[in-house]
Amino acid sequence: MTAVDIPAGSPFGLDNLPYGVFSTPGTAPRVGVRVGDRVLDLAALFEDLEIPDPALSADSLGPFMAQGPARWAEVRDRLQDELAGHSRRGEFGQFLHTLDRVHLHLPFRVGDYVDFYANEHHARNLGAILRPGSAALHPNWKYLPVGYHGRAGTVVVSGTEVVRPSGQRRGIETDMPTFGPSQRLDIEAEVGFVVGVPSRRGVPIPLGDFDAHVFGAVLVDDWSARDIQAWEYVPLGPFLGKSFATSISAWVVPMGALEHARIAQPPQDPEPLPYLRGDRAWGLDLAIEVSWNGQVVSRPPYAQMYWSPAQMLAHLTVGGASVRTGDLFASGTVSGAERSQCGSLIELTWGGTEPVTVGGRPSTFLEDGDEVVIAATAPGPGDARIGFGEVRGRVIGRPETAG
Amino acid sequence: MTAVDIPAGSPFGLDNLPYGVFSTPGTAPRVGVRVGDRVLDLAALFEDLEIPDPALSADSLGPFMAQGPARWAEVRDRLQDELAGHSRRGEFGQFLHTLDRVHLHLPFRVGDYVDFYANEHHARNLGAILRPGSAALHPNWKYLPVGYHGRAGTVVVSGTEVVRPSGQRRGIETDMPTFGPSQRLDIEAEVGFVVGVPSRRGVPIPLGDFDAHVFGAVLVDDWSARDIQAWEYVPLGPFLGKSFATSISAWVVPMGALEHARIAQPPQDPEPLPYLRGDRAWGLDLAIEVSWNGQVVSRPPYAQMYWSPAQMLAHLTVGGASVRTGDLFASGTVSGAERSQCGSLIELTWGGTEPVTVGGRPSTFLEDGDEVVIAATAPGPGDARIGFGEVRGRVIGRPETAG
Repeated sequence: MTAVDIPAGSPFGLDNLPYGVFSTPGTAPRVGVRVGDRVLDLAALFEDLEIPDPALSADSLGPFMAQGPARWAEVRDRLQDELAGHSRRGEFGQFLHTLDRVHLHLPFRVGDYVDFYANEHHARNLGAILRPGSAALHPNWKYLPVGYHGRAGTVVVSGTEVVRPSGQRRGIETDMPTFGPSQRLDIEAEVGFVVGVPSRRGVPIPLGDFDAHVFGAVLVDDWSARDIQAWEYVPLGPFLGKSFATSISAWVVPMGALEHARIAQPPQDPEPLPYLRGDRAWGLDLAIEVSWNGQVVSRPPYAQMYWSPAQMLAHLTVGGASVRTGDLFASGTVSGAERSQCGSLIELTWGGTEPVTVGGRPSTFLEDGDEVVIAATAPGPGDARIGFGEVRGRVIGRPETAG
Repeated sequence: MTAVDIPAGSPFGLDNLPYGVFSTPGTAPRVGVRVGDRVLDLAALFEDLEIPDPALSADSLGPFMAQGPARWAEVRDRLQDELAGHSRRGEFGQFLHTLDRVHLHLPFRVGDYVDFYANEHHARNLGAILRPGSAALHPNWKYLPVGYHGRAGTVVVSGTEVVRPSGQRRGIETDMPTFGPSQRLDIEAEVGFVVGVPSRRGVPIPLGDFDAHVFGAVLVDDWSARDIQAWEYVPLGPFLGKSFATSISAWVVPMGALEHARIAQPPQDPEPLPYLRGDRAWGLDLAIEVSWNGQVVSRPPYAQMYWSPAQMLAHLTVGGASVRTGDLFASGTVSGAERSQCGSLIELTWGGTEPVTVGGRPSTFLEDGDEVVIAATAPGPGDARIGFGEVRGRVIGRPETAG
């Protein structure tokens, strides 16, 4: 029995309490917490409790995230206490808005966006599809979490339409490119981690300090134009094939809500170098679901990720790079050992050669009008599930203006 | 004869007037203009002229840069008029600070940082050094300006010390890496372009709209750890080999000051695709000078760049990526046809095999305590030269904390 009505079995119960930024008609964006199918106005509640905090009235989670883990725990504890009805007799109605009456914004300003490539199935699948006959994994892959910088300015919130990119595409059996709309538009189902507490340039973040810096997790759809990427990516990596849009969920699940999801990582062989070695229990047992036009086409298991988020952060900073509040680093595509567990269409359809049936139609890559939704849940205490906010995106065409 | 004392032949005369952000002891950072060897307090002058603008009191050029080209021209015209003594009899002394009494800050908050690879000599040299026996240029190189995203959060202002990065380095004749401080720490002498006016996601910026978006240019030193980069960069590009620091000059030269530097680009063959085709006069005749511990070791000619900044911006956005105020895109290393014109040490010393003599010592890559200064000038009207602020950086070691 809680002080707030939450549907039975909701993955947005008191054990979750993810943060976002919302507005209602005529009011400014501010910090909210998802409770069941409603959004709690955190700034207003805390004012009413006479513990106001200007960070909660900001139009970004940044100021709150920068306050650090002690404050995150304090706010979370107080919220759970209030919502459980332990310390308050009042009603919460005035602070709650149903989801369909709020606008959800990008929850934080993205500093730097780094995308890793931390799943062995995905790396092996892409190696086999794109470089048949060569070793599927490059020699560095098992020694470090391979990653690169993506475009922070085109990270968008769930629900934002994605304009199909045009660009130079590799020609068939020629080294001459053609120009036009991407014909191999793909998704990548990923999990992203959001930095709250910044670090200093020149000072690495050791594996054990992950909790002192990382605020929470989001779902990520790293839209990818495979034909543009294939032509451009040598030798400096993906650029326009990825830069047109990256979608994230509107809700940031605090790391505190993922305590019950922590599991051992898969074994790592060879043993990582000392700066990547340490606490093995940084795997995360997240169950991801990818829907294409309403039909579930894949169930990627995050538990099978080779590199942990703590290893990613330790690697990202070991050379002296600093992190800032709002930095986002994503896992790379999550795939499992089975075809039905692959987090990208290029793997699901094996390079477009083995279509899957979606809405009765044999499908390989995304058509204009297609919609993809990525969702996920994690184990909570007892039978509870912790839900991630979905990442939803629909592809729209663009009138040709360049060429 | 001007209303302000400017040393004869100064590359910071009335035809230049670059913008920066400065503070004096006890005052907040604000917008300044370099005039000779002094800094003009622009906010204070414009208040005195009764045309105050809060954008000029900001601690970043962002708000001013976002105002757009008409406003940039208006402020520049007015400044030139005032400083030439045409419209004012007063003294400027109260608004001027000598350079040694001010602190220069990072002039703008960097949104996304993109680094191109737009110089053919550099690309061919690196191909020959790193992939001997293979084609020096990849097939895509002459079709598009190859580029990638760098780390925006570690862009620092000239004068900032650079901590030698540690990381995984490729072993000799083995696929096992070693960990430790980079042994091949290098520079890259580049020119960067700063976006003032943002664009919309999904809407490319055609070649001809460059002037409507780009505010000015800076010098860039893209510090590079070659051994870290060599091990990590396949298949997603440079990451920790570049992310520890990128230095830029404290002064942003407005594009209006580079009018006399515009020249035809080198011929492009094959002819670029239509979206990269257009105004040929977007070459820039900048004379760059690289000094290592006080000794000039190279004079890279920007005139030899294959891809123009307008082509870089058109390519960057053709897939639908938007740009924001404060986005920085850099040219990539500037090198000429001669060895003495190379903008990186890996080229100057041919992969470290042919040391150059610096301070009497045979030198290949940077040692702790070494200082590199990159400077540049451009033709102005008549005999005038337009100076870029230097990019200065000294390498310092780091006590080993990880490994």
